[in-house]
Amino acid sequence: MRTTTGWQAAGPTTLRRASLERRDLRPDDIAVQIDYCGVCHTDLHALHAVDEQAEAPLVPGHEFTGVVTGTGPEVTTFSVGDHVAVGNIVDSCGMCAMCEAGQENFCHSFPTLTYGGTDRQDGSTTLGGYSREYVVRATFAYPLPSDLDPAAAAPLMCAGVTVWEPLRSLGVGTGSRVAVAGLGGLGHLAVKMAVALGATTTVISRTQDKRDDARKLGAHDLIASADTQQMATARDTFDVVIDTVSAPHDLAPYLKLVAMDGTLSLLGYLGPVTVEATDLLIGRKKLSSAGSGGRLATAEMLQFCADNSIDADIEVLPSSQVDTAIDRLRQNDVRYRFVLDMSDLD
Amino acid sequence: MRTTTGWQAAGPTTLRRASLERRDLRPDDIAVQIDYCGVCHTDLHALHAVDEQAEAPLVPGHEFTGVVTGTGPEVTTFSVGDHVAVGNIVDSCGMCAMCEAGQENFCHSFPTLTYGGTDRQDGSTTLGGYSREYVVRATFAYPLPSDLDPAAAAPLMCAGVTVWEPLRSLGVGTGSRVAVAGLGGLGHLAVKMAVALGATTTVISRTQDKRDDARKLGAHDLIASADTQQMATARDTFDVVIDTVSAPHDLAPYLKLVAMDGTLSLLGYLGPVTVEATDLLIGRKKLSSAGSGGRLATAEMLQFCADNSIDADIEVLPSSQVDTAIDRLRQNDVRYRFVLDMSDLD
Repeated sequence: MRTTTGWQAAGPTTLRRASLERRDLRPDDIAVQIDYCGVCHTDLHALHAVDEQAEAPLVPGHEFTGVVTGTGPEVTTFSVGDHVAVGNIVDSCGMCAMCEAGQENFCHSFPTLTYGGTDRQDGSTTLGGYSREYVVRATFAYPLPSDLDPAAAAPLMCAGVTVWEPLRSLGVGTGSRVAVAGLGGLGHLAVKMAVALGATTTVISRTQDKRDDARKLGAHDLIASADTQQMATARDTFDVVIDTVSAPHDLAPYLKLVAMDGTLSLLGYLGPVTVEATDLLIGRKKLSSAGSGGRLATAEMLQFCADNSIDADIEVLPSSQVDTAIDRLRQNDVRYRFVLDMSDLD
Repeated sequence: MRTTTGWQAAGPTTLRRASLERRDLRPDDIAVQIDYCGVCHTDLHALHAVDEQAEAPLVPGHEFTGVVTGTGPEVTTFSVGDHVAVGNIVDSCGMCAMCEAGQENFCHSFPTLTYGGTDRQDGSTTLGGYSREYVVRATFAYPLPSDLDPAAAAPLMCAGVTVWEPLRSLGVGTGSRVAVAGLGGLGHLAVKMAVALGATTTVISRTQDKRDDARKLGAHDLIASADTQQMATARDTFDVVIDTVSAPHDLAPYLKLVAMDGTLSLLGYLGPVTVEATDLLIGRKKLSSAGSGGRLATAEMLQFCADNSIDADIEVLPSSQVDTAIDRLRQNDVRYRFVLDMSDLD
């Protein structure tokens, strides 16, 4: 086994520095020195559910960038020194219809998650990217385009592909009318990508407070959801509404904004959701959801971001301040994504 | 005013024969002698909610066929003696984006329903097709193709267009894989239409009891929803699942049947529905709903049915047996639609 250092859950709001083991490289593995790891809402949920009695420790982190430090003998796609990025999936069955279609995120036998997942070969629990090293199948690492900043690119690997998938699969392009509800880690990337895809892009926020921020991200307009007149005027006007609000909430106001034959895509809150069937019926609207993406979409998204100079707006903290990042993210006190600098783990 | 005879609600399960008033013909109206009127589940709901204190009586019925007996001076599209069909919408604003798109069923100021609606000119409550005569704007009557049987065509005007809309808007055609859950008034027409559109069509029913019926309607297969093995095998295999089950039910088993990028369309139960967002997420599935259709879709559907010899499987009862029809429909004791013969009202 290899030894590295990382940040391990010590309770729902605290992590402690710990020594971690990584597997020796299998023939198709690479070792990655992690330089930057984004802090995702999923990490909050995982910490909140932390079980001190669990056999394996919880080490969050599933959007990171770094440098290849070793390769297994079968690896031909990476060399030591390459810059790479890893997202929230590190393996899948590779044989089912979904995997064959490049949608490993929908693998019929469930993809192996970057942390809290079960390794398909040795049954161990995966430990995430809040650490200095990760060992991963080369197939699930992606070359990091040189045009992208390694810190600001880290959040693309989860937040980025999560918004990219629905924008692409729903056909967003020139002339599309897109609304993005919620301006956080997911939402701000959705705005940047929708704008770059050629869509007329509107932010839906509770008030007008974020109007300047929305404009800076490239959005063409902002609608205050608390303003019933504005919401009524915007009825039936968006082909795609991307809902990134991370708490349970009433979907009806957002469904009303969807245009004929358009779609409301849920990205933020992935629990049970209730809608009135007639709110779908009137205008032939659709409800969908999205989260993460397959290998094809991830690679495509990275190239699109490199070509269009898109990365996350981030606040970088040394990894020793991970508790601060967690605490402030819980209070939505970040514009728009924390990224941990792992170099302090050396 | 004109006087006619019809069946008026006298309680949640009973109707009584009554004299009804119809308006004098406006310049763009036609008068229709109703020969056949289908009995729709909506009629059950309306009767159940009957309010004896209401100012206007409840006369159900919103899928009927008959013969033109009079025309207003501006009407150029119909002549006395023409066979016509009328559905569940008899007017709309005609000016909003939805009306201009031929989707009067989504009229922004709500379409005028055939019964229980509010007339846009005189504010009266509309009385439905369980009667011998109806007066309707010519725009909302449709020529009945001569190839169609007037009795068996009546249910096309509500049940038919309700299933036609999602089949068409979801792009069902040759090679599509369609499942139809529930084999009643809506479901049996969905099977016939999907088959005629070229789709491989499967019925989802609780048991195998209806296998022969499904085959007779043209379905290629039947899956018993109570058979977990069958349901598991069918996972992710249908581009479109048409759910016509009319009571509240768990959508999760049907969502599982939907293929990647496919849609579950709710037609039967139009109340609040709850789904797990992850059941939409995994496989990029969509939830939609449908009910009735606009003028364009209605006319298109009638022509398609005439061209493909599609009508409803019906049991015709004299209108004096309307209580029996209501009672048996409540028990799902009909294959597949009751149609009332109104000639006994003369």
